[in-house]
Amino acid sequence: MENTRVLIIVCDGMADRPTRARGFQTPLTMAKKRYMDRLARTGSIGLMYPIGPGISPGSDTSHLAILGYDPYKYYTGRGALEAVGAGITLNPGEIAFRCNFATVDNNMIVIDRRVKPTPEERTDFALTINKLNLGYPKISLRFVPTVGHRAILILRGEGISRRVSDTDPHVEGRAVQRSTPWDDGEDSEHTADFMNEFTARSHLALKEHPANKERIKRGLPPVNVILSRGPGTIPPIQTLTAKYSITAACVAVVPVVRGICRLAGMNLIDVQGATGGLDTDYAAKADAAIAAMKEHDLVLLHIKAPDVASHYGDLEKKVWTIERIDEAVKRILESLDLNTCYVVLTSDHATPVTVRDHSADPVPILIAGPDFDESETPTFSEKTAAAGNLGTLCALNLMPILMSRLGKTGKFGS
Amino acid sequence: MENTRVLIIVCDGMADRPTRARGFQTPLTMAKKRYMDRLARTGSIGLMYPIGPGISPGSDTSHLAILGYDPYKYYTGRGALEAVGAGITLNPGEIAFRCNFATVDNNMIVIDRRVKPTPEERTDFALTINKLNLGYPKISLRFVPTVGHRAILILRGEGISRRVSDTDPHVEGRAVQRSTPWDDGEDSEHTADFMNEFTARSHLALKEHPANKERIKRGLPPVNVILSRGPGTIPPIQTLTAKYSITAACVAVVPVVRGICRLAGMNLIDVQGATGGLDTDYAAKADAAIAAMKEHDLVLLHIKAPDVASHYGDLEKKVWTIERIDEAVKRILESLDLNTCYVVLTSDHATPVTVRDHSADPVPILIAGPDFDESETPTFSEKTAAAGNLGTLCALNLMPILMSRLGKTGKFGS
Repeated sequence: MENTRVLIIVCDGMADRPTRARGFQTPLTMAKKRYMDRLARTGSIGLMYPIGPGISPGSDTSHLAILGYDPYKYYTGRGALEAVGAGITLNPGEIAFRCNFATVDNNMIVIDRRVKPTPEERTDFALTINKLNLGYPKISLRFVPTVGHRAILILRGEGISRRVSDTDPHVEGRAVQRSTPWDDGEDSEHTADFMNEFTARSHLALKEHPANKERIKRGLPPVNVILSRGPGTIPPIQTLTAKYSITAACVAVVPVVRGICRLAGMNLIDVQGATGGLDTDYAAKADAAIAAMKEHDLVLLHIKAPDVASHYGDLEKKVWTIERIDEAVKRILESLDLNTCYVVLTSDHATPVTVRDHSADPVPILIAGPDFDESETPTFSEKTAAAGNLGTLCALNLMPILMSRLGKTGKFGS
Repeated sequence: MENTRVLIIVCDGMADRPTRARGFQTPLTMAKKRYMDRLARTGSIGLMYPIGPGISPGSDTSHLAILGYDPYKYYTGRGALEAVGAGITLNPGEIAFRCNFATVDNNMIVIDRRVKPTPEERTDFALTINKLNLGYPKISLRFVPTVGHRAILILRGEGISRRVSDTDPHVEGRAVQRSTPWDDGEDSEHTADFMNEFTARSHLALKEHPANKERIKRGLPPVNVILSRGPGTIPPIQTLTAKYSITAACVAVVPVVRGICRLAGMNLIDVQGATGGLDTDYAAKADAAIAAMKEHDLVLLHIKAPDVASHYGDLEKKVWTIERIDEAVKRILESLDLNTCYVVLTSDHATPVTVRDHSADPVPILIAGPDFDESETPTFSEKTAAAGNLGTLCALNLMPILMSRLGKTGKFGS
């Protein structure tokens, strides 16, 4: 239908898993969420596998799928998506690693994985690292601090590959890892060697850095190692505008979501008070999405909070985030007309509070709008979605379904 | 089960889309259709994606899928299917275009896309066109008028490809299009050149044709151009007999459906009074299908009418066609024994009256027979099908399901 627009609300990790111990209740069945329920009643609901049955998604692969990009084809590592999301311009062929400023002891055991230098220190450390000459004439590096303890390392040159392992041990109390190649390729071996050299040499340079001597004097942990993980290149995806002739925007804080959306050609909308945490300004994000709907055919509103509560294993807090999101849904229903707008409400994956991590469970999805049948379901939950009128979909189906409703795709055959 | 037979009733475009503006009613919920409802109650129902979620099918791709041929593998253009459906024998490698007799003005703007010459004129025009020498020694052409304004152009020879664009602008008031290659292949370029030469030279020959001078004298539009579209080659499919050791027949009028069925090795049954339009003889078609069930393991009964009403955007008329089909279903239920016959009732795609074109929506499907569970559903509709006991299928699943019930397929593994 012409001039019809779409709002996709992705509630990160909101879906959960009913357990016997909790009487098969989930945060969605426990939360008071009048407006989500109303939307479910007057729209279609179903189950959606972010990737497929039994596949536990990252936020990166699931968002690629939600936006219509097959992650099995287009997922080329998280680093590049984070880099782009942090506003860094990455060129094809460049490899980006997510990095942490961290502290190791004399045995290279990681004491603190997340050390936040001051802005001045960050600049100093970056300068030192960017000046390193590692003896690889065909590889150049670019080290860019982003926020807090985070930075991006970018490799450029010949004979490089993203198929190498992390130096980050991912937990404290373990040694910095040697990067190893994931395959037999010469480039992968070459890149792993480079990363090991980078880790050793940047450790030496940081250890002796005057700023660290100052930090130690002040009783602060020295920033004496750069941990790297998630190497990636930018995926060769077509923008949504090129694919479907639509304009699109995203309201999100989380860098990897912003990165994917930016690569998809979406406008990134910044919102005052949006934190990506439990304390985010839910109303402000909803209002920003409502405003963006005036200018765009498609808006993605991403809310991280339920995932955060889930990772803490905090059921009560997760219920609380869903109730806050429900208030945002209320604002949206008061502003958007379902005769001319589609509203999609779903999760990028389940993050069961019992698991405290992403899981492979399918997630409930709700699509309301001018021409999606009413479900007549009293509530929106994992249980009602399983019997819903949308049936069972995969996230990769979502964009084709929506874009065909918007008249943006053609017929297969004639 | 041995000696069990299958009748598949394909109601073209019968499935529709519930809209908020119409209180989520559809032609299927509005029509009085006692016999379909009875069949649904005593059979299994579910949703079927003709191709897949979000994919809007042509009648060609969807019928290939319904008959068990993956359209992503076997769809090689509509022209060949139409040609075969019109009774033309096409050889592998030959490329068939659907053609219209049409009228252009002096600037090659199409004034009338559908001009019906008299039978004598058709023969004369075809003779002229078949005599054209276009200066492509390796390509020969065959031009065969079929019905009314329609004809088929067949190319045969070396260095030809079906991957070229249409010369038909598809709407009146626009110029005849230049055929362009769809890919970089030399054959495609060669074929596009040939088609442009064909269009120009046949235009010149027809313009000066005595029969056209006569037409103009009589105040009729001259048939001065041949518009071509939908080039295709015959798909390399195995017949149903070869695949499943069954005999099969089809009761259909629409050429593309007949073409696919003929390629599938099915007997084409002609029915007096069957028109492919709203005024078709529904009872006669039902009776022909019932009769064919005596001689065949599988019969496909195709009824075009609901699609026709949908393309007109005529809700009332669409409801009316469903009620006429219901009378046909009554005859079928009175004649066939569900203890020894399977009856499948479905659509090849949805054609929502609000859209007036095919859509990507899933379609309701009903399978009744000796050993499909009863749904106990009061009615057959998009909504009840979504909660049906068949779950959600793709059209490509249908034949394997039916053929395994008939004992025509083996085990995968042992």
